[in-house]
Amino acid sequence: MPTVTFLPGYQKAEVSPESTVLEAAQKAHITMNVVCGGNGKCGKCVVYRKSGEAEFDKEKFGIFFSPAELESGACLACQTRVLGDLLIEIPECSLIQEQQILMESRTLPTQFSPSVKKYFQTLTPPTLEDPSPDLSRLLWGIEKAGGPKAAKNFAPLDVLRSISQVLRSSDWQVTGTVGIVPGGFRLLNVEKGDTRERLYGASVDLGTTTVVVNVRSLVDGTILGAGSTYNKQISCGEDILSRVNFAQKSGLSRLQALAVESINAALIIASEAAQIDLDDVYEVVIAGNTVMTHLLLSIDPSYMISEPYVPVVRRSIYAPAGRLGIAVYPGAGVYTFPAVSNFIGGDIVADILASGMGETTDVSLLIDIGTNFEVVLGNSEWMISCAGAAGPALEGGEVLFGMRANPGAIEKIELDDDTLEPTYTTIGGGRPRGICGSGLIDLLAELFRTCVIDRTGCINTSIRNPRIREGQHYPEFVVIWKEESAIAKDIVITENDVKNLIMSKAAILAACITLMDAADITRERIIHVHLAGAFGNYANKKNAITIGLFPEVPLERITTIGNGALEGANIALLNREKRLMLDRIAHTIAYIELNAEPTFMDRYTSSCFLPHTDLALFPMVQQMLEACRVRRR
Amino acid sequence: MPTVTFLPGYQKAEVSPESTVLEAAQKAHITMNVVCGGNGKCGKCVVYRKSGEAEFDKEKFGIFFSPAELESGACLACQTRVLGDLLIEIPECSLIQEQQILMESRTLPTQFSPSVKKYFQTLTPPTLEDPSPDLSRLLWGIEKAGGPKAAKNFAPLDVLRSISQVLRSSDWQVTGTVGIVPGGFRLLNVEKGDTRERLYGASVDLGTTTVVVNVRSLVDGTILGAGSTYNKQISCGEDILSRVNFAQKSGLSRLQALAVESINAALIIASEAAQIDLDDVYEVVIAGNTVMTHLLLSIDPSYMISEPYVPVVRRSIYAPAGRLGIAVYPGAGVYTFPAVSNFIGGDIVADILASGMGETTDVSLLIDIGTNFEVVLGNSEWMISCAGAAGPALEGGEVLFGMRANPGAIEKIELDDDTLEPTYTTIGGGRPRGICGSGLIDLLAELFRTCVIDRTGCINTSIRNPRIREGQHYPEFVVIWKEESAIAKDIVITENDVKNLIMSKAAILAACITLMDAADITRERIIHVHLAGAFGNYANKKNAITIGLFPEVPLERITTIGNGALEGANIALLNREKRLMLDRIAHTIAYIELNAEPTFMDRYTSSCFLPHTDLALFPMVQQMLEACRVRRR
Repeated sequence: MPTVTFLPGYQKAEVSPESTVLEAAQKAHITMNVVCGGNGKCGKCVVYRKSGEAEFDKEKFGIFFSPAELESGACLACQTRVLGDLLIEIPECSLIQEQQILMESRTLPTQFSPSVKKYFQTLTPPTLEDPSPDLSRLLWGIEKAGGPKAAKNFAPLDVLRSISQVLRSSDWQVTGTVGIVPGGFRLLNVEKGDTRERLYGASVDLGTTTVVVNVRSLVDGTILGAGSTYNKQISCGEDILSRVNFAQKSGLSRLQALAVESINAALIIASEAAQIDLDDVYEVVIAGNTVMTHLLLSIDPSYMISEPYVPVVRRSIYAPAGRLGIAVYPGAGVYTFPAVSNFIGGDIVADILASGMGETTDVSLLIDIGTNFEVVLGNSEWMISCAGAAGPALEGGEVLFGMRANPGAIEKIELDDDTLEPTYTTIGGGRPRGICGSGLIDLLAELFRTCVIDRTGCINTSIRNPRIREGQHYPEFVVIWKEESAIAKDIVITENDVKNLIMSKAAILAACITLMDAADITRERIIHVHLAGAFGNYANKKNAITIGLFPEVPLERITTIGNGALEGANIALLNREKRLMLDRIAHTIAYIELNAEPTFMDRYTSSCFLPHTDLALFPMVQQMLEACRVRRR
Repeated sequence: MPTVTFLPGYQKAEVSPESTVLEAAQKAHITMNVVCGGNGKCGKCVVYRKSGEAEFDKEKFGIFFSPAELESGACLACQTRVLGDLLIEIPECSLIQEQQILMESRTLPTQFSPSVKKYFQTLTPPTLEDPSPDLSRLLWGIEKAGGPKAAKNFAPLDVLRSISQVLRSSDWQVTGTVGIVPGGFRLLNVEKGDTRERLYGASVDLGTTTVVVNVRSLVDGTILGAGSTYNKQISCGEDILSRVNFAQKSGLSRLQALAVESINAALIIASEAAQIDLDDVYEVVIAGNTVMTHLLLSIDPSYMISEPYVPVVRRSIYAPAGRLGIAVYPGAGVYTFPAVSNFIGGDIVADILASGMGETTDVSLLIDIGTNFEVVLGNSEWMISCAGAAGPALEGGEVLFGMRANPGAIEKIELDDDTLEPTYTTIGGGRPRGICGSGLIDLLAELFRTCVIDRTGCINTSIRNPRIREGQHYPEFVVIWKEESAIAKDIVITENDVKNLIMSKAAILAACITLMDAADITRERIIHVHLAGAFGNYANKKNAITIGLFPEVPLERITTIGNGALEGANIALLNREKRLMLDRIAHTIAYIELNAEPTFMDRYTSSCFLPHTDLALFPMVQQMLEACRVRRR
């Protein structure tokens, strides 16, 4: 079998002939940037062939390269077939870079009532007069030690197989671990001696891009460690659609394995931080979107990506960790969050749990923003939801100098009222390389506030300021002069960028208004706005309202719930009662399909303004604008 | 690795050096006769080394052989270590022979209410207006087709993984298979099209010696096929004790695998007879004694063979077939019968079910006789039980010409009142080679009736008849002259044989009396005597009472329930309601430990007479004896 060696790290992989270089890289555990799922469409997995024989169709895929690049061996990893031993160089840009991962979550107070408990007992050894079976003896012991009624239990074969040895080798002093399940309890483990302190659980945010894990004591609920990693599925496609395409082409098993590998990698980091043994983790609660959950469970997601968008299963699933390959105690239960629909997945149900909006009669508006957005409106009595594509602009895509929240990204920015000179901070503190989502919101609001752009997003080129100029294609505003930037170029925002951003935010605002109208709720009646996800966490609330990202409410009503998926998973881990609520909530939330909603397009068009055509909906912004105008005048 | 070749069949096995010849034989799938479990104690696994190098300690194990035999290469397979390639001859006597297997069982009428059902449905495909998940759509379909409520179900991952493909490839015409479980139902399978007719179940009698299987339609309950085989565990020891010893020495896994192999072999025979595909078998119900059940589930039986005789688990177990390796539909449930105690196993609970004694207020006495015996007394309101060792005499062991129920065994015999000439039948109809259990009961009763033996079992050598003579050690009665026998020897029964038989029957009678006294039940109040097992099936009822095998009752009150374990399994397979009753029964039957019962020895001593010291307990026998005496006089 040919060997492919990758520079600069000299990782090696043996692959069968005709494999692609991408497959070899995956085998060598190199996480390449494959946005399109390996279809030769995105041109992101650039590599250079240094030596050896390979097949690459320059006619078809040469478009991604200059003649000079082709000359020096450039090709796409996903479209290059290995014919013999190869030496391949991977440029840094083709690798997935470390990104700012949102690991914080609010720690909502929740009743501590985990579903797994340990009971220590000193049993009376059997005699001729009392030869009751080992299992009964143990179960009575657990009941006597304050545990659940012996009668209502399930004992898996693996535990039955170990009981007799453990009881006798421990001199009848044992700790039983039980998990509460519908209708009774499951005997999870029997250990020698008193191990009550060694009882842990893990909560997992299984994101499309990142996986974050918390490890917690299930004795007192304290957090002991956290870990995060990229979702290794990224090597099979950056977004959900490309992953489902990958699954259809190459089978589910690789994606399932990568999901599990990612969770395990984060679990190992968290357990090392916590200094615990993963074999003592007896429960794992996972919140992920509907496709991620299907992939983790190796359930076919194929019919979710095209009309009529049908998942296989929506409710919560409870499966043993050993069955899924998750590296905790093999008999530990793995609980996955239920989904509302294809588009409102377990991650959003976790957001709802984290926001507490299902436990108050106050009306709340929950917004989770990423490439896709999800909006939920309601209270403990009713909820309605919708979802849509915001486009990549708010995450830095389709914006000339937009970038993900990686080091060098401008994350906060203000403009001087008169000089338009920026004051900013970058992630990592270095020189700026581009602007990430929260920076773009700030910039848009500041450009609007300083009247550099008007309500339609047009740049006012009549303002005399060197930063405002005609670019190659569009008018543009120079944010950072090249002398100050890390990329030896002026960092600008073009009028086209501004329009892309406005279209993104308009989709979200229109979705909010659609739900409010459907429920006949005015903005005054919204007591809480919960912003979930990384974007919501880092964005400036006032600026978000200024541009009309969502309906105006008094700022103090807006809260960020941070990583709501993780926080929801934490709550469900620590309080088993909430899980019952979850299945009920997930089952009863109405879902409005925006594409089937005739009024949505009108609302979208009205939202394609800063902040909206109808300024009466944004009284605070209106006030600010008037003040600015007065000043400018 | 050395190769061992076995004559006369030329089976071959490669084994690592230092393996025993017995291990090689097991690997070559040769079922040898190993009564002691491979400890070099029984001398049954005789083989002859024809060529090649092997190590065998003649000093220690030479006692089993004559010098001439040792000269010709005789050794014990279990004590011979392979040093290089070997040629080994196995004499026929070292192989397990075919034996009469009891496959018949009464077919009690039982309500037909199986736990597995199939529902065919034509589903409405999903639309944008109704994009509910595949699983919900299927479950609603099942409910609409008359199945259980969609809400209360468990869907295993394997089924979730197949649903979406099956629904679409079948054009939404599918059959769902559901199994009723506590608290709801389990979705077992989803198949294309209408497969309702292909729904089968299997009932299994997992005996220490034999395994018998019935395959039944779960659409109407009819029996479609039967199959039986030796329990392949016999190659690891003939009785329970030697098998547990083997497990302790060599691990459980081999015994578990052999139990499963035996069940699978019988299933294949039954399915071929039934002309069905084993993949359409959705439920398997297994009745076995407590040790057999532990071994099948790979649960350690070690602590059951010595005081205080403790099993790991007593209740019924429900595990997926795929998990155990049973060759039916992998998601099929395998149900094992609950046990009362170490000694009253699932086989006896199945007897109880088959006898119907738990469903009437009439008092019944159930007796299951083998090397060990079990007795249960009671009715639908109460039951008490006990068990003990009858010794091997009633199965033909420890009797000079006793033999198992193999071809050539005398199974029925009568003696002429005057000449004492026998009239007999043999199994298979050939010349007699020995006498099996039912033949021995007849013989004992006839010798007693004709006054050849007295109530203590002594042979009356003063009777002038050539058949009555002094043997080498004891007086003896010639049953078959050598000219008539198949073994070129006189077939005799010695006074010692008679005493051994009396001690065996005395243990059973004493056990019955102990239970009757404990419950304060006289023989007149016993409305039914149920005889279970092969012995009970073939024995002559009148003769059994004549010798005092159990308390005298009118003959018409005695019924044989045949293979009660199999019949009980059949009933539980066809009627799921009975299973609930089983767990209740098994839980409430009292168990009397005879060894801990001070009065038992006295009762045993009183029972060591034909039929008992107190003839008043056997009025019919008393009458017969008086008639005989009168005639003799």
